[in-house]
Amino acid sequence: MFCPVFNACALTLDAEPKFWWAGMQNSQLQILIYGENIRHHKIELAKAEGISLINVETTDSNNHLFINLDLKNAKPQTITFNLIDDQKNSTSINYDILAREPNSRERQGFSNKDVIYLITPDRFVNGNPDNDNHPSMLEKADRSFDGGRHGGDIMGIRKALPYLHDLGVTQLWINPLLENNQEKYSYHGYSTTDFYQIDPRFGTNEEYLALVQEARSFGIGVIKDVIVNHMGSGHRWMANFPSATWLNGQQAWQQNPKDIVYTSHRRTTVQDPYAVASDTADFDNGWFTDTMPDMNQTDLHMATYLIQNSIWWVEYAGLSGIREDTYSYADKAFLTRWSKAIMDEYPNFNIVGEEWTSNPITVSYWQAGKQNNDGYTSYTPSMMDFPLYDTLIASLTEPEGWDTGLINLYERLADDVVYAKPTELVLFEGNHDTNRLFSLMKNDIGLFKIAMAYVLTSNRIPQIFYGTEVLMQSPSEGRNDGAVRGDFPGGWPQDKVNAFTKEGLSVTQKEALAFVRTLLNYRKNSLAIQQGQLRHFVPKEGVYVQSRHHGDETLLIIYNKNDQSVELDLPRFSSVFNGNTQGVDIINQQSYQLDAPLKLEQKGVTILSLKQ
Amino acid sequence: MFCPVFNACALTLDAEPKFWWAGMQNSQLQILIYGENIRHHKIELAKAEGISLINVETTDSNNHLFINLDLKNAKPQTITFNLIDDQKNSTSINYDILAREPNSRERQGFSNKDVIYLITPDRFVNGNPDNDNHPSMLEKADRSFDGGRHGGDIMGIRKALPYLHDLGVTQLWINPLLENNQEKYSYHGYSTTDFYQIDPRFGTNEEYLALVQEARSFGIGVIKDVIVNHMGSGHRWMANFPSATWLNGQQAWQQNPKDIVYTSHRRTTVQDPYAVASDTADFDNGWFTDTMPDMNQTDLHMATYLIQNSIWWVEYAGLSGIREDTYSYADKAFLTRWSKAIMDEYPNFNIVGEEWTSNPITVSYWQAGKQNNDGYTSYTPSMMDFPLYDTLIASLTEPEGWDTGLINLYERLADDVVYAKPTELVLFEGNHDTNRLFSLMKNDIGLFKIAMAYVLTSNRIPQIFYGTEVLMQSPSEGRNDGAVRGDFPGGWPQDKVNAFTKEGLSVTQKEALAFVRTLLNYRKNSLAIQQGQLRHFVPKEGVYVQSRHHGDETLLIIYNKNDQSVELDLPRFSSVFNGNTQGVDIINQQSYQLDAPLKLEQKGVTILSLKQ
Repeated sequence: MFCPVFNACALTLDAEPKFWWAGMQNSQLQILIYGENIRHHKIELAKAEGISLINVETTDSNNHLFINLDLKNAKPQTITFNLIDDQKNSTSINYDILAREPNSRERQGFSNKDVIYLITPDRFVNGNPDNDNHPSMLEKADRSFDGGRHGGDIMGIRKALPYLHDLGVTQLWINPLLENNQEKYSYHGYSTTDFYQIDPRFGTNEEYLALVQEARSFGIGVIKDVIVNHMGSGHRWMANFPSATWLNGQQAWQQNPKDIVYTSHRRTTVQDPYAVASDTADFDNGWFTDTMPDMNQTDLHMATYLIQNSIWWVEYAGLSGIREDTYSYADKAFLTRWSKAIMDEYPNFNIVGEEWTSNPITVSYWQAGKQNNDGYTSYTPSMMDFPLYDTLIASLTEPEGWDTGLINLYERLADDVVYAKPTELVLFEGNHDTNRLFSLMKNDIGLFKIAMAYVLTSNRIPQIFYGTEVLMQSPSEGRNDGAVRGDFPGGWPQDKVNAFTKEGLSVTQKEALAFVRTLLNYRKNSLAIQQGQLRHFVPKEGVYVQSRHHGDETLLIIYNKNDQSVELDLPRFSSVFNGNTQGVDIINQQSYQLDAPLKLEQKGVTILSLKQ
Repeated sequence: MFCPVFNACALTLDAEPKFWWAGMQNSQLQILIYGENIRHHKIELAKAEGISLINVETTDSNNHLFINLDLKNAKPQTITFNLIDDQKNSTSINYDILAREPNSRERQGFSNKDVIYLITPDRFVNGNPDNDNHPSMLEKADRSFDGGRHGGDIMGIRKALPYLHDLGVTQLWINPLLENNQEKYSYHGYSTTDFYQIDPRFGTNEEYLALVQEARSFGIGVIKDVIVNHMGSGHRWMANFPSATWLNGQQAWQQNPKDIVYTSHRRTTVQDPYAVASDTADFDNGWFTDTMPDMNQTDLHMATYLIQNSIWWVEYAGLSGIREDTYSYADKAFLTRWSKAIMDEYPNFNIVGEEWTSNPITVSYWQAGKQNNDGYTSYTPSMMDFPLYDTLIASLTEPEGWDTGLINLYERLADDVVYAKPTELVLFEGNHDTNRLFSLMKNDIGLFKIAMAYVLTSNRIPQIFYGTEVLMQSPSEGRNDGAVRGDFPGGWPQDKVNAFTKEGLSVTQKEALAFVRTLLNYRKNSLAIQQGQLRHFVPKEGVYVQSRHHGDETLLIIYNKNDQSVELDLPRFSSVFNGNTQGVDIINQQSYQLDAPLKLEQKGVTILSLKQ
């Protein structure tokens, strides 16, 4: 695309972003050029139509330049610019300005219509055993180690698309796929070592693009897992920083790599009106781990790099969403700019941030539309609903009592008033950081169904974790990353249990799979679930009733947490019947009269679609 | 004041309010007249200057009339109106319109300058043993029963004023003093049987007025405990309701007094955007207990009665505040009108509501200035800060850990963003419904001092409970009303321990008393505490540091929860030193250099006033 890198040019050069597009909303582009001692080189725009060179910026790095271009009137083309040293030696760079896909700007982000399926790609399906190892990648495959690389890849996800479509999934959130060339624990993907390259053990950029396109043919979108807070210590920058302020704690680390200050993880310090600046900095600027250096988003070149990188992947791969990791750990002024830049570029797009706390007040701070006391503004439409998730798990696992159990789940929803748009939050039954739902529910299929139905009929955007549908397990207490991110059964040729063929699945696993599939597919066409009004009733004696209503569709969702069957007096709920007289169970199609007591089986959920 | 009640007039009549004032902000007055079969009587305003009769309203009660007057141009006077029956028999009523005290409207409500001292009057000081029993009152004194009446009274509070002044108290919140002519458990005062009469076992209206006036001479204001949600079942209304909708559940109760529906206590139902009306009604309209019928504030006559009653006591007695009981249990539209009417009448007044929940979102809903999503508006300036109280107790009693102990107290303050005006909340160390602080702190004087210092140096309006200063005790778990509301030592002549004379106090009690007195009196002149900026530092290793700062006054408040003494590195806190180089302990006057490590004694608080 330009004077080939690592070849016999006068200079070995690299440019990021790798390429760009004409007709973007933001017409400015900043290209980061890397090359030995290029700091004082003169830049000439040799060939470019409708593009102007705004300026060239340098830092204290001898090896980096930042070229600012204005593409306002640019057509797709290959432009050329020359780097000229003080001896008048010139090196040419060709740089592609591409045409955008039609309707790229108008793309629809994930929404309440969707069900998001989270995949840890190393642990899902090994579609291409040939790429399990790669000569230039430090860590080799070791399926016997739960913290090692197991070989799952993009090709595996592609192969699973028919299964996922049949299951009823409409969005895939895939844990990070970018290169993580780290010595160990690289499988999770949260230590980026190249922001523009898919890890070769997962596949190639082109394979990723092909996955997104093929998924689209199944009606499935793809959400990228983005990390703007930290990167991997194996990134080439660590030997050659683009600026002296590229990382937080950069100088201390350069003087002594053991002199790392870690984040305090005290997330309220960036919202608390009484916090001191030093505590805020301890949270914001500390490293996540010694292999995850903290990027400094107050360095404006770094900020622009990250913003462009996020947009590049959306545009390149055709994404329908971003999940932003460790949201509040990044500089908050940057998060405003980052989210605004993406949403300005794609007004119908969606971004969901991870703020891992049980406190709705803390989570609500980061959502677009929230009127914060300190004037802080966000453009990130969605946040992960950790508070409701935590309450859901606790309410199902603790005994019922005056102020324990379902009442807390009921009362938690009243906290929705603190959110700008509670219905745009993503509610999940688990993720790569939580223990497996079935294990948390103590292997109780009734409680499992309650939790799944709650998430999938909630007034939220629901997200499930790969393998939940076949009751994948983990320990139920403490952090168990390797075990939680277990291999999906059937993802490896030698697997004895295979969720794709159902071979080896237990009766209970099959029951769970059928339940999830029925619910997901029902949900696809249910406006009551997707956008209906929610009403709920104070839980009594272990039974909690919600209704969803839209147009002439009414659902009555009845959660029974009791060990034994219960007769439920339905007239208490008549205010949400909307004139209907009977209900049909959407799982087993059984009909019930609404004027008679309803017998609920022990522990589980009954979802009635009401009829005249 | 009018044709004497229960005498030989043509009619036996009663009028409420007992009298009124000229020159009130709201010039309208509604007088509730009670008399046998007066419904169809004609009303004539016989003698009244500048007062017009707007109209007379009736209900389905034969025995009540509501006379609406306009006093816009009224001077103080005694007015006369005649009730004329269909036989043209006329009965005259004289009704006093009084002159207001100078500056009544401008009175200053309790504020951050104050420390509120809560007194359960039956349990504080028995100043007049002659009124322990009263012939017309059902329940007799029994000091041997912890749920009985012990004889404390208004005269007792008057006698304690020098002690309270010396202690540094500036406001008294006294549990309800109105007549509670109930068979049992009447001592607590929350079952009003006459809204215009002090219970004779506490004293008289005139004694109450004298108490307020005498307290004022000590610089102490008086806050009335008001209950608009419920009344006592011994109220004469129960035999003769002013309307068919005077109470919630009135008809059911009339048909069968055992047919009482109790409140669900589910307080989110009046805020929850998804709640159903039936659940809201179950909370709002249920009775508190069978002896506490639920008043129906949607009955506009009842609403006006309650509003006028609250204003009457403020104006009559010269109050500086209202504490509103079971706040959210009353009709919320009424609460808006009630709070607005009072604050319109007294713009500098203060009202604090009781919303007993740990959730700041739920509490914040009721505070004046809060922009609620549903448009609900309140004019009540303050709420009791139960969330911070609960967190304070838990943080001091649970072990320190990553997410336990002081960190929760630190993080809870970040939730202040949810309140319209967090600094106007009332923070308490205990009240008549909580177990005693010293007992909750497991009799640890160090933890006790931490809790007291936290409350008394907080950016809140602080409130303490009678006897806390001498370490009154209770069980530490469960509800223990009678024990919590124990007799103040020295309040009864025969008491062996006497807090007033210090006779019989243990060394630890004396230490606590001195500590509280020093802090309260210091606080009186500390603008840093009363209105200063608050900053705090993430707690580390069991030590939590806050600062308060105003003008050239800076306080550093250091909480050490460790069992052993600790060396604290002070430079971490230098951002709040404001150029000072030393600190003087406000309790023991010891000086410390700020550039040296500070040795903290085991468990306790160090409050340094910083100096150049």
